[in-house]
Amino acid sequence: MNRVRVDLGERSYDIVAGSGLLKDTGALLGSLGFSSRVVILSNPVVERLYCEEVHNSISAAGFECSRVIIPDGEQYKSYDWSYNILTELLKLRLDRKSCIVALGGGVIGDMAGFVASIYMRGINFVQIPTTLLAQVDSSVGGKTGVNHPLGKNMIGTFHQPRLVIADTDVLKTLDQRQLLCGMAEVIKYGIISDSGLFSYLEDNRDRILGLDESAMTHLIKRSCEIKADVVSRDERESGLREILNYGHTVGHAIETETGYLKYLHGEAVAIGMCLEAKISALSGVLDASHLGRIEGLVKDYGLPHGIPDDIQRNRLIEHMAIDKKTVSGRVKFILPEEIGRVRIETSISDDVILRALA
Amino acid sequence: MNRVRVDLGERSYDIVAGSGLLKDTGALLGSLGFSSRVVILSNPVVERLYCEEVHNSISAAGFECSRVIIPDGEQYKSYDWSYNILTELLKLRLDRKSCIVALGGGVIGDMAGFVASIYMRGINFVQIPTTLLAQVDSSVGGKTGVNHPLGKNMIGTFHQPRLVIADTDVLKTLDQRQLLCGMAEVIKYGIISDSGLFSYLEDNRDRILGLDESAMTHLIKRSCEIKADVVSRDERESGLREILNYGHTVGHAIETETGYLKYLHGEAVAIGMCLEAKISALSGVLDASHLGRIEGLVKDYGLPHGIPDDIQRNRLIEHMAIDKKTVSGRVKFILPEEIGRVRIETSISDDVILRALA
Repeated sequence: MNRVRVDLGERSYDIVAGSGLLKDTGALLGSLGFSSRVVILSNPVVERLYCEEVHNSISAAGFECSRVIIPDGEQYKSYDWSYNILTELLKLRLDRKSCIVALGGGVIGDMAGFVASIYMRGINFVQIPTTLLAQVDSSVGGKTGVNHPLGKNMIGTFHQPRLVIADTDVLKTLDQRQLLCGMAEVIKYGIISDSGLFSYLEDNRDRILGLDESAMTHLIKRSCEIKADVVSRDERESGLREILNYGHTVGHAIETETGYLKYLHGEAVAIGMCLEAKISALSGVLDASHLGRIEGLVKDYGLPHGIPDDIQRNRLIEHMAIDKKTVSGRVKFILPEEIGRVRIETSISDDVILRALA
Repeated sequence: MNRVRVDLGERSYDIVAGSGLLKDTGALLGSLGFSSRVVILSNPVVERLYCEEVHNSISAAGFECSRVIIPDGEQYKSYDWSYNILTELLKLRLDRKSCIVALGGGVIGDMAGFVASIYMRGINFVQIPTTLLAQVDSSVGGKTGVNHPLGKNMIGTFHQPRLVIADTDVLKTLDQRQLLCGMAEVIKYGIISDSGLFSYLEDNRDRILGLDESAMTHLIKRSCEIKADVVSRDERESGLREILNYGHTVGHAIETETGYLKYLHGEAVAIGMCLEAKISALSGVLDASHLGRIEGLVKDYGLPHGIPDDIQRNRLIEHMAIDKKTVSGRVKFILPEEIGRVRIETSISDDVILRALA
């Protein structure tokens, strides 16, 4: 078992990563001081695959374990559904020291974190991410949220989990498209802060796509270390943490414009990373050879790298203007300076954006 | 202008109290580093009385000021209405450094704080309480929330305001029943931690009910000092802060049972204080003479002190069991040991509660 510490004072917690961890859930929860009631939040797909093992482990550790199951899909990451979950938690009489266990991908993790943060002004939650994307990104760092018709993740909180359990075995049941979405975020970590990781991804493509266990553990651990380091230094995204949004300014706009239906999050981010690298190159910040390596690696992992002609570029710019990363109307971009280093930029003209999006 | 500091590290803020402060709102906001957009959240009753003065002051300080007005009443302190407000904020394009100004009583303050805490994972808010109850209690300390059919304030967060502006002039338009509700919380501060304040209330009833300015300023400042001190030492209610819930265990149960309609919050707390003092006396913790002074002061200020026969006592006990102050099924009571000192007690039998409620 590999352990990565997220250092946030009294809100610090561990990420444990490795094979066969689901069956240890109860034991891992047992040392965290929760009261007797634990609720697993999941969806029917994940429930069928993994809930019994996790539920049994929690019960065996002496907790009264219940399940709340919501439909599978980003469209259920809504304010209405968060209310339904809260009502179930009240009926189950969860108290202030109870724990919610998020068993699923990013939607389940974001929803569980959000309801945990507003149920009785905040209760415990634990993340058991079952997608690569959630393991390397959304389960770590305490961002929670639901979508609003006017924008993705517009409603949410910062609420840190008490523990993250990343079991590499669950990746075996993940479909290829979901796996590649996770790889998009791993590529992101390489670009924003670790050229060594980026080279490793270039050199080990086949092992990684074959789910070689030591390669996957390396990726997950290294990604979590980078994210933990950034989050520890800027929990509430007042500066440094914004570098984690590389690829997301354009990516979120694409997701909003396509109603969250056409692209998975990682795919939209992959496109966003290529286009934001192009913006960087057009602005004279990024060298053409580095731009080429970024676009090359995204393509190598079978991820999309451009936007179809039928998407109106002006609409994307409008969506960026209402994004929550925007302050006083200035759209923020994270621009690579080279592979392994980025800067935050707020003075990109619409003209440059349109040329990159052309 | 009197200033009380709530000391919470990087979340510290000031409470300013005195006459004629509304017109200084813009100047007071100007030094807090907000971006250009400010939204006032209010209700039609308060809007008619005070919004123009506050709005003009904010505009004069260079902010783009808008209003979001919700209907007046506790029944609108709901999850649905919080969504409506969030939608308005998104339409107004509030960004992460914008500020929401809560202009109203406890409902407006709780709602504004809640939506500020979950809009884009948390933005600034400022409290301008327009009831005595809100000035001495709900505007200070960062508790936010909305009601759920299964319980009061079951959904909410801890989110500290950046400033609290308590203008004593607004009390002149407050109806007597609302004023007395505020006095219930002031009496509470005397019982839980300041026998001198309690005596002052006994000795100065007529000046206070006549809204003598120096008496009111004294009460507000002293109440805020007590609350600020408790909150500074226990922001998230993990121990000491629970003493502020004196009267509230029974009070919330009464409000829930009567559907928040029959009693105002302060009235329910007044009854709760008398009954919890009786529980304390029946448990051998509180002397009969102190119980008599507590009941006497509550009556002196024209507040209710007992529950009508038609309320089923067993139902009240059921509501207490689902209250968010309950952990692992144990109902928590704050019991006075004498006027000015309380203890936290979790081992009160239903039998003792029923005798006190008889």
